[in-house]
Amino acid sequence: MNYQLDDILTLPERFRRNLINSVHGFKSVALIGTINPDGVTNLAIFSQLFHIGANPPLVGMLVRPDSVGRHTLQNIRAIGWFTINHIQESFITAAHQTSARYPDDVSEFDEVGLTPEFLPNILVPFVKESQVKYAVRKLEETYLINGTVLVTGKIEFLQLPDHCLGEDGFIDLHQAGTITSAGLDAYYLTHPVSRLTYAKPGIIPQEIPR
Amino acid sequence: MNYQLDDILTLPERFRRNLINSVHGFKSVALIGTINPDGVTNLAIFSQLFHIGANPPLVGMLVRPDSVGRHTLQNIRAIGWFTINHIQESFITAAHQTSARYPDDVSEFDEVGLTPEFLPNILVPFVKESQVKYAVRKLEETYLINGTVLVTGKIEFLQLPDHCLGEDGFIDLHQAGTITSAGLDAYYLTHPVSRLTYAKPGIIPQEIPR
Repeated sequence: MNYQLDDILTLPERFRRNLINSVHGFKSVALIGTINPDGVTNLAIFSQLFHIGANPPLVGMLVRPDSVGRHTLQNIRAIGWFTINHIQESFITAAHQTSARYPDDVSEFDEVGLTPEFLPNILVPFVKESQVKYAVRKLEETYLINGTVLVTGKIEFLQLPDHCLGEDGFIDLHQAGTITSAGLDAYYLTHPVSRLTYAKPGIIPQEIPR
Repeated sequence: MNYQLDDILTLPERFRRNLINSVHGFKSVALIGTINPDGVTNLAIFSQLFHIGANPPLVGMLVRPDSVGRHTLQNIRAIGWFTINHIQESFITAAHQTSARYPDDVSEFDEVGLTPEFLPNILVPFVKESQVKYAVRKLEETYLINGTVLVTGKIEFLQLPDHCLGEDGFIDLHQAGTITSAGLDAYYLTHPVSRLTYAKPGIIPQEIPR
């Protein structure tokens, strides 16, 4: 099937939304934990997370201001921090349900049945059920072409199970049970194929032993 | 294992790079096809691709100017277009090998053994072996906090196998054989768990039949 831009622009809205949301492949999906100045916790699923740098450790997150992410953005602006919590198979439905439009004074933690966890010296809530989780201090906001906001932050705390951490710092996300997503509503487990050595011209990359 | 920011900043460089690159979960990984004004094609693996909007269909890509992505960025600036090509299991090693630092006048297509494919009215090369692929017209560049460049573009052509396209526009990436990646060097196949209905307060999301 081939689509030109004109075809894409004249597709039914729901079809186009599914098509264009699934075209970029599998995504980093996680639960973003925040709190507002009145102490109401918020939890929202996001699939637009990405690496910006390792030193200092920087992360980026895209937020549509008109989406259910608006509470997340308001809270990040007010408090300056958020948590990122990986999703495992056992709570995919609860994680998906955080995308429902709940009122301001309701916590998605309560509504979907996940447990807020507060760790020392960090104001924002983690998801107790998540195996891999980290806290991010907001650094800047950048506005993109269609009003989407790119929030950039620094990782200031990171927690993961010992048995998922390799000697070289690599986190075995398959072992951690971290899922991935595609499109707006599809969730996947993964199956490791290979880790490959650093690529150099003229040398075929080799398998890194697990 | 818990890491505070100070711990992260004092880790050995390679350990920190692996740790922070794998913390964001599974990623959208694809081959970016470009061409320079002399007609030399370029192919580079990128795992920092994301959805910005569906109408118009917008995509974002992060490039570190000091990385092997510099040729990609130079070509995009010169020609204004690039292609994004999904990776299947059969050419993971070739895809990984595109990250080697080849000279300007060498095409990664030739070096790694993938086939450049030119489609009508599009100057930039696709990967013939890729099942899902699209062409993007560059719209803008945004500089982020650490010198990373966010390239925003509009999808103007999209090709995918008929049997991977659902009635609702959802692309079955598992069926297409699209892989995902984690960290700097790990590649994974996926296993579908569920597609869930649109979330509404007080209603438990249901499985969408495949």
